[in-house]
Amino acid sequence: MTTIKTAHILCVGTELLLGDIVNTNAAFLSQRLAQLGICVYKHTSVGDNPERLKAALSEALSDADLVITSGGLGPTYDDLTKETVAEAFGLELELDERSLGIIRSYFERTGRVMTKNNEKQAMMPRTAHVFDNHYGTAPALAVSSSDGQKTVIMLPGPPGELTRIFDEEVAPFLRERSDSVLVSKNIHIFGIGESAVEEKIKTIMTTSENPTVAPYCKEGEVRLRVTAKAHSEDAAARMCDGVIEQILGSEVGRFVYGIDCDTLERALVDKLHEHALTLCTAESLTGGLIAERVTSVAGCSDVFFGGCVTYTNEIKHALLGVSEDTLARCGAVSCETAMEMARGARERLGTDIAVSATGFAGPTGGTDQTPVGTVFIGVSTKYGEDFCKLTLSHMRSREYIRTVSASNALNMALLAVKKLTKS
Amino acid sequence: MTTIKTAHILCVGTELLLGDIVNTNAAFLSQRLAQLGICVYKHTSVGDNPERLKAALSEALSDADLVITSGGLGPTYDDLTKETVAEAFGLELELDERSLGIIRSYFERTGRVMTKNNEKQAMMPRTAHVFDNHYGTAPALAVSSSDGQKTVIMLPGPPGELTRIFDEEVAPFLRERSDSVLVSKNIHIFGIGESAVEEKIKTIMTTSENPTVAPYCKEGEVRLRVTAKAHSEDAAARMCDGVIEQILGSEVGRFVYGIDCDTLERALVDKLHEHALTLCTAESLTGGLIAERVTSVAGCSDVFFGGCVTYTNEIKHALLGVSEDTLARCGAVSCETAMEMARGARERLGTDIAVSATGFAGPTGGTDQTPVGTVFIGVSTKYGEDFCKLTLSHMRSREYIRTVSASNALNMALLAVKKLTKS
Repeated sequence: MTTIKTAHILCVGTELLLGDIVNTNAAFLSQRLAQLGICVYKHTSVGDNPERLKAALSEALSDADLVITSGGLGPTYDDLTKETVAEAFGLELELDERSLGIIRSYFERTGRVMTKNNEKQAMMPRTAHVFDNHYGTAPALAVSSSDGQKTVIMLPGPPGELTRIFDEEVAPFLRERSDSVLVSKNIHIFGIGESAVEEKIKTIMTTSENPTVAPYCKEGEVRLRVTAKAHSEDAAARMCDGVIEQILGSEVGRFVYGIDCDTLERALVDKLHEHALTLCTAESLTGGLIAERVTSVAGCSDVFFGGCVTYTNEIKHALLGVSEDTLARCGAVSCETAMEMARGARERLGTDIAVSATGFAGPTGGTDQTPVGTVFIGVSTKYGEDFCKLTLSHMRSREYIRTVSASNALNMALLAVKKLTKS
Repeated sequence: MTTIKTAHILCVGTELLLGDIVNTNAAFLSQRLAQLGICVYKHTSVGDNPERLKAALSEALSDADLVITSGGLGPTYDDLTKETVAEAFGLELELDERSLGIIRSYFERTGRVMTKNNEKQAMMPRTAHVFDNHYGTAPALAVSSSDGQKTVIMLPGPPGELTRIFDEEVAPFLRERSDSVLVSKNIHIFGIGESAVEEKIKTIMTTSENPTVAPYCKEGEVRLRVTAKAHSEDAAARMCDGVIEQILGSEVGRFVYGIDCDTLERALVDKLHEHALTLCTAESLTGGLIAERVTSVAGCSDVFFGGCVTYTNEIKHALLGVSEDTLARCGAVSCETAMEMARGARERLGTDIAVSATGFAGPTGGTDQTPVGTVFIGVSTKYGEDFCKLTLSHMRSREYIRTVSASNALNMALLAVKKLTKS
């Protein structure tokens, strides 16, 4: 079997060129191919235009060992990917009875009527490797040139189908044809900026070539991706672990909230589960975002009781018992109000931990002393209270300010769990 | 001036080929070019590799009147877009004093130190049209071939810079060089599926060629995009309005919640403002998502008072006064509980309208009678109450069930405003 080292991703669909959809398939396929140790040279997107598709395919084939296409496998006359690839390799399409059976059963299962043109989707070159598609009607397939030097894998365009078929069927197919694997692990960091992270672990980042260490930042969070290349998954994983240990031992270590733990909210829900602790929320500027993020984690209902969104002073007083005096004296955006919100929520909802957020999300509002971007996060537990003040730029969007505030609240709750379980 | 009719989008950056970032720039540029009446032939993404960038540029130039590049304009040695384009057109780079001044003042304004290599970013071909970049250090520029037949516009890669420079500087530049404009208007529809919409206005959709009518659907919502091409913006807008009126007069009309109104939550906040009505929320399975979506709309604080996230029976009783008898007899996921949640929230928070949601978001939970995907939405106003039951497939993701539930709640609140203001 010829080893596949390089790839070209060719996406087909006029909706891409109109900007109606963002091409998430190219990013997904690139990530997966990198993990398989296959180097992606180029992405190309063309419309449902036979001539331009043919030219793009021929260019892609001259470029790389493997071409992965997405889209153009539907039942209608303008779906031409399979026909174009077959022509390029000089192959005929024939009815594939097995694929036809799968399409028929898909229609039966979803209670829809199969029309005549769906049969077109079961036409395959005889030498094709057919991947089963349980998520739609377009079968996916791989076709190779007669000398085995070039392979084209054709996948349906809808991301829900493409990603699942790739992980279930295409990845094992490619693993057999690649000579190395890449393993990536993510270190999740909160509470320190990207440049400060880089400065503190500069030596590790610049001297480590395999694994590589690459930083990514997004709305107040930093992620370090450690990627190792080796001949087996185990060996690559072990190489990653070595570098991760170094980073955990560095000055950055105390800002790490997890390894491959997906999100702050998942890390928090996991920690609450681990220690059988319960949480509630009291939100002003975040308007429900903290609770929404916690409840986006399946299984949160054992550890999350609920929360209050208190957008007015009256409701802060009525639902959470924030004193009218505090609101009048210190204002709704103050450390005092944040603390009373957290305390009130914890007492009324009866949880171990409560976290609160109050601030000015903008674009209007705020005062000279407390401009837009000023946010107070409060935490209350049975053993103590804590708060932090954020001073975000008033130039930031409302969405950014709310998101970063919610992330800080989740992080404060996570730190509270750690404190509670130490004491 | 040569008219620009066709374009090729060329994105530069190894992070695209690694799948580290999704290429939103290509979709953004495609949408904007379509609005300008410029047809996009192809998207290409290449890494920071001089040879492959050169080849991709030469191919793009052979293809289309206009090439728009994104990325590769940074200060480091591997940022090569400008150099490669200048070489293709046989142009020299010279220091552009005006650009250097803008870069200097950017560094002063953001309080950062300008390093020597940033000067590279002020090197321009003498014939370049320079677009000001107030959002970063990489100037954007347009360069044309000596015969004026081909133009390359180079934009920085970060979407926050690219989108703003495009709208402020590049769009006017291209408008002068395009012979027609496209105007699109969106009809926002809720409460009816895509295929039902298509069936009801089939004649309008298939007979109308200019404007075109194209449906898009996303998590329970349908959007019809009406797009007209004409020689002026006014003429195109009038053509759109004609078709929109036809659609509003059709059977689909009563499901339309707005024209170009962005989102359900914005339509709701606008309607509440218009009629000086106030809203609160009571959420179980949506966990704060309804409140979060309402409060994502700037200026909502006049009409939104707050809400409760009640994830346990105890909290439903304590915060909203849902009776223990109802919870025991009908269960937390029931029409009765949804109604008591809405009623309790409205009375306790003192608003004109309250909306509630309770259901099973999955993946676990649910019973034989009320499986995952069963959701009850309740609405309470001073003049009456209403509810609806959703039966979403238990195969749907937790995220989908929560999102569609929140959308239905927002829509129920919107209908309540309409009813209240009619009576």
